[in-house]
Amino acid sequence: MSTRLAYFGPPGTNTEEAAIKYSELQSGGYELIPYPTITHAALSIQEGRSALAILPVENSLDGAIGETLDFLIHTPEPHFIHDELVLLIEHYLLAAPGVEASDVRTIVSIPTAVAQCRSYIDKHFPNATIEAALSTAKAVEQVMERKDAAAIGNKRAGELYGTKALARGIADRTPNHTRFVVVAREDHAPSGDDKTSLAFAFATEDRPGQLVAALKEFADRGINLSKIESRPSKERLGTYIFLVDLAGHRTDAALAEALTVVEKPCSFFRVLGSYPRYRGE
Amino acid sequence: MSTRLAYFGPPGTNTEEAAIKYSELQSGGYELIPYPTITHAALSIQEGRSALAILPVENSLDGAIGETLDFLIHTPEPHFIHDELVLLIEHYLLAAPGVEASDVRTIVSIPTAVAQCRSYIDKHFPNATIEAALSTAKAVEQVMERKDAAAIGNKRAGELYGTKALARGIADRTPNHTRFVVVAREDHAPSGDDKTSLAFAFATEDRPGQLVAALKEFADRGINLSKIESRPSKERLGTYIFLVDLAGHRTDAALAEALTVVEKPCSFFRVLGSYPRYRGE
Repeated sequence: MSTRLAYFGPPGTNTEEAAIKYSELQSGGYELIPYPTITHAALSIQEGRSALAILPVENSLDGAIGETLDFLIHTPEPHFIHDELVLLIEHYLLAAPGVEASDVRTIVSIPTAVAQCRSYIDKHFPNATIEAALSTAKAVEQVMERKDAAAIGNKRAGELYGTKALARGIADRTPNHTRFVVVAREDHAPSGDDKTSLAFAFATEDRPGQLVAALKEFADRGINLSKIESRPSKERLGTYIFLVDLAGHRTDAALAEALTVVEKPCSFFRVLGSYPRYRGE
Repeated sequence: MSTRLAYFGPPGTNTEEAAIKYSELQSGGYELIPYPTITHAALSIQEGRSALAILPVENSLDGAIGETLDFLIHTPEPHFIHDELVLLIEHYLLAAPGVEASDVRTIVSIPTAVAQCRSYIDKHFPNATIEAALSTAKAVEQVMERKDAAAIGNKRAGELYGTKALARGIADRTPNHTRFVVVAREDHAPSGDDKTSLAFAFATEDRPGQLVAALKEFADRGINLSKIESRPSKERLGTYIFLVDLAGHRTDAALAEALTVVEKPCSFFRVLGSYPRYRGE
């Protein structure tokens, strides 16, 4: 039986495109299984229904993807970030065959895709009604039955559903990259060029001083920080869990030492995983 | 002519509820004007069509609201945070009169509201189809025409559209608070108990050390940090603009001095405004 890779589907989502690319980079052989939400895809590895799950974690225009971060932080183990991958996102305006740009009265997509194409829409379709969909793939599926609507989706969704591309590259800013994490029941062995993702929080009120002290432990050891993010603790407004991506593997001597020091004053501390840094095409 | 307060509508959104509450706290008299998106509401103050705009900025369960932060950071002046307000959000399950819980096959709302009620939905409506809407108010409007659907929305939307409440308080975790900022062409004069919001970024690669140094300037002067957040710079993946909320007014001596020191090495630096800290009901 081939290894199962769970993803946020249906086929035609950007996450499916990332799953296909990851499978190819790993020399193929994964069986790709769609799930209706990010959380359902992620939970499938805990339930033993798949070995890996690929989840979008950050977009260069929109920032963090909360559903993925909340799963990584709050859901009981075992799960770790095992790998990462970056995908270039290109938005197409897609419609059913026979529909022309001048027919379009409604644009359907997920709110983030609409937000990324706002200037294009304001310029070319200033009077269009915006309709929400659950995924870009669903949006493309929905407009196939309509003569007055277009969807924002990717090239592959357009091919899968047999649509016509009215335009491509319609995002207001480029490049538009999304970073995905591959989650598994274990993280990755050291590869020589690794990253470590960490989540931590403090119980006391002296958070600013404590955050500075924690970051200083990494900076003083020359450990580079490629990301810092905060998420609500979900306990009360204004209390946060900090997320940092650090250069190196958690088994590296300097990083292991810094992690031990940083953990001490924390009320919450979870190493989300060590994994090879993505080095692009 | 009364003062115009722009908000993300239509009537029945949580932002409208915040606008009503803010108008009451300011002894009333504001004329509330709905706009179809957060960005449109915000831009109305720059275009002189309203004096104030109220924008959701952070939720205790979901975290930052990117559209608002991106407007505050990236849109040319003049606009400042002039005030803030915190609202307790209560989710109702709403349907057309005559519809019973056992009739419900579809649940309609915005993705964040669905995410906040996931356990409730999984327990009571495990087979329901989820449909996306552009706002909770729109979701409530849409289910009024259906006999097999319910919307997640607030009490006021239920009253405005004449729905029946099938359940209330259905969020998985409580309390669920949203923080709103009131934006105007000028920030607020010192009140004696203020906050200052700041956005800054570094051009060089030594970001971790520079961030630590910046935060240390505030910590060393005893300036409390009530929030730290990062947003993508929108230039390339992995470059960030940091957002901090600091105790005090930008004209306070210690804070003014720290801001001057922190600004020096920054490639981007913008004081988003000083305003009275919200002290609750």
